[in-house]
Amino acid sequence: MKPYIEMTDEELNEELVQLKKEYKKIQALGLHLDMSRGKPCQDQLDLSMAMMDVLNSDSDLTCDDGTDCRNYGALTGISEARELIGDMMENNPKDIIIYGNSSLNVMFDTISRAWTHGIMGNTPWGKLDEVKFLCPVPGYDRHFAITEYFGIKMIPVMMTPTGPDMDVVEKLVAEDEAIKGIWCVPKYSNPQGISYSDATVRRFARLKPAAADFRIFWDNAYGVHHLYDDNQDYLIEILAECKRAGNPDLVYKFSSTSKITFPGSGIAALATSPNNMDDFTKHLRIQTIGHDKVNQLRHVRFFKDIHGLTEHMRKHADILRPKFEAVENTLEEDLAGLDVGTWTKPLGGYFIMFDSLPGCAKDIVSRCKKAGVVMTGAGATWPYGLDPNDSNIRIAPTFPSLNDLKSAIKVFTLCVRISSAKKILADRKEAA
Amino acid sequence: MKPYIEMTDEELNEELVQLKKEYKKIQALGLHLDMSRGKPCQDQLDLSMAMMDVLNSDSDLTCDDGTDCRNYGALTGISEARELIGDMMENNPKDIIIYGNSSLNVMFDTISRAWTHGIMGNTPWGKLDEVKFLCPVPGYDRHFAITEYFGIKMIPVMMTPTGPDMDVVEKLVAEDEAIKGIWCVPKYSNPQGISYSDATVRRFARLKPAAADFRIFWDNAYGVHHLYDDNQDYLIEILAECKRAGNPDLVYKFSSTSKITFPGSGIAALATSPNNMDDFTKHLRIQTIGHDKVNQLRHVRFFKDIHGLTEHMRKHADILRPKFEAVENTLEEDLAGLDVGTWTKPLGGYFIMFDSLPGCAKDIVSRCKKAGVVMTGAGATWPYGLDPNDSNIRIAPTFPSLNDLKSAIKVFTLCVRISSAKKILADRKEAA
Repeated sequence: MKPYIEMTDEELNEELVQLKKEYKKIQALGLHLDMSRGKPCQDQLDLSMAMMDVLNSDSDLTCDDGTDCRNYGALTGISEARELIGDMMENNPKDIIIYGNSSLNVMFDTISRAWTHGIMGNTPWGKLDEVKFLCPVPGYDRHFAITEYFGIKMIPVMMTPTGPDMDVVEKLVAEDEAIKGIWCVPKYSNPQGISYSDATVRRFARLKPAAADFRIFWDNAYGVHHLYDDNQDYLIEILAECKRAGNPDLVYKFSSTSKITFPGSGIAALATSPNNMDDFTKHLRIQTIGHDKVNQLRHVRFFKDIHGLTEHMRKHADILRPKFEAVENTLEEDLAGLDVGTWTKPLGGYFIMFDSLPGCAKDIVSRCKKAGVVMTGAGATWPYGLDPNDSNIRIAPTFPSLNDLKSAIKVFTLCVRISSAKKILADRKEAA
Repeated sequence: MKPYIEMTDEELNEELVQLKKEYKKIQALGLHLDMSRGKPCQDQLDLSMAMMDVLNSDSDLTCDDGTDCRNYGALTGISEARELIGDMMENNPKDIIIYGNSSLNVMFDTISRAWTHGIMGNTPWGKLDEVKFLCPVPGYDRHFAITEYFGIKMIPVMMTPTGPDMDVVEKLVAEDEAIKGIWCVPKYSNPQGISYSDATVRRFARLKPAAADFRIFWDNAYGVHHLYDDNQDYLIEILAECKRAGNPDLVYKFSSTSKITFPGSGIAALATSPNNMDDFTKHLRIQTIGHDKVNQLRHVRFFKDIHGLTEHMRKHADILRPKFEAVENTLEEDLAGLDVGTWTKPLGGYFIMFDSLPGCAKDIVSRCKKAGVVMTGAGATWPYGLDPNDSNIRIAPTFPSLNDLKSAIKVFTLCVRISSAKKILADRKEAA
């Protein structure tokens, strides 16, 4: 087929008649399919059911260092968990704090702490007239929700295929002391699925922020979430790079096992410099007596070591790879050559990013919904939900079964086509 | 023996010679005993080991309402956990949020939220010139640590055998808008082990605070932690009483299973009014995607219902009762008639409170330490660690084995006697 834009009004109208017939047929099916959130599917969850067996009433719940995991103590986590997660995050166990079940919660608390107590002796953010964060866009809506909740002004910075536009990042952080942070999902990014290039990471580690309390919020949520054995993204380890660059305190790095074992019942972690660590533990010591050590031990005994965890992730990949490929194939089959959108082909992570013609994203998502397919809300990938082009859509292929996913993505491409054809016709009418 | 105060200098000096001999003997034993924290002992932890068996790889981890506990969702907790904890807290499940592993963390976050966002539309506390909390004393050091961390001015209010001095509480909250909260451990209080009387709870529910955002922080940590089957304290349920009094939003009530199953691996909960609930969930929705539902399910399937939990608590009582009685008996045997201190005889909870002669607490604790017995730091039961009489000592009998405890408390009474005799002699010398 030829690009829609090259079709005559008549051709487009004919196309629309066909598409709408298809749409009506699909509506009659009464689908209930959800591609909105980055949730593992049941088959993925089943991979970790054996973790429910590693501890039983005969188990000795004592750690290597003699700590009884069943009692209070070990504020920063048990040593074997810090070691395993250290291997996973590529950090020294001593630079790691094991938290509770949610890395998002750690990020929230980190900003809350900066707000009430300040970072390493600097003025609490709550006492400042204005606090700003750089938000690479498209990005992760739950990050933006945290900064919005604290009234932090969010400044979008465009993502490129190698990460955020570093010319802009370098310039802004250097000239504006009110800029206190930047949200990053550096590997298999949400929603693009791309990974920051070596040059990008190098430049991050060498930022010269005007604010002494500027921090990079490095949410490495998908660090080990590859789709392919032989074709993986490698990311420069940011803490080490910051240390080499003489900026050891520049970054907070977050991770969790949420999409490795069970979302909500995994373990979350922070890796950062000794100075930052002091800052975190001063706060943590008041906030809690400690996190769930039994669950830490359960994870360690389940995986044994980083090789065990890596093998476990290969099983996830076997489930997810066909789903990502199904989406990409359908997008290719149904949309290639029409010039109505572009999309990414990630090597890992949880998302595929779709960019429609300007002004179509909301309409596409709304049409999908009316046909029983729930997508992430259009605009969600931008701060305040405001996508200036109304073009960005996050596709989350993990949760539905492969069959459901195939149905859902067909509905999606159909809606993209309808919406695009209508938009082109409307634009022409307006221009006439 | 006769009261020390009635002894002559000579008699006291003779007594001291004997006591110091004993002390030297004990020091030679090289004891390492810990009565400092409210930690369950190993036998208590063993009671919950069967909880490690209730979920295994064949288990269906689906909730009654169809929620898969292994995936994201159920922000306020799974319905069966809210029901069980509702029965435990004597509250409607719909008024309950199940949190993570630590109620202290929920209290911290609650103050942090009030600090950054304010309570129910009121000015964030961080924007006020001064924020004050009433602190019933002696009280719980970790409560005081939170308020101190936020720079909240702590005002001590004396505890009586029926709870805080309500004349003072009523007066202060009515006249000072800067007073935003009060810390309470209403049942088997920390450290007294007493429970608030009906009149006290009634008066709490009828407080007329000057501040619209004043809240009672009702930490019902020991609600089901009885020592005796047939002799238990009953506490008026505060939420219901507040509702009856027309002050439904006055209280935040906290609890957890920390000292029921495993400290650090239990589940924590909040009970409060629908208005407060809205306030909490608005915040929670941004802070996290949800808490550990697998652990919630594990607890529910272990206890089955409130009767199961009650029977479980009887087993804790069987372990703890002899410990409390051993402490009380030794205090009685070694100190009765000497007029060198008073102590409580709780029917539940985790602590016995000892009050020495004024000016002796620090010395007693220090002497104990030098003989290998660690007590809670003297002063810890007062805000800022400042006990104006230097007389209050918290005894935590739960963690050591019964034999160790018996040795430890003998050391304690010995140190009380040494310290008291020396103090009386010193006072006389000074007066002379």
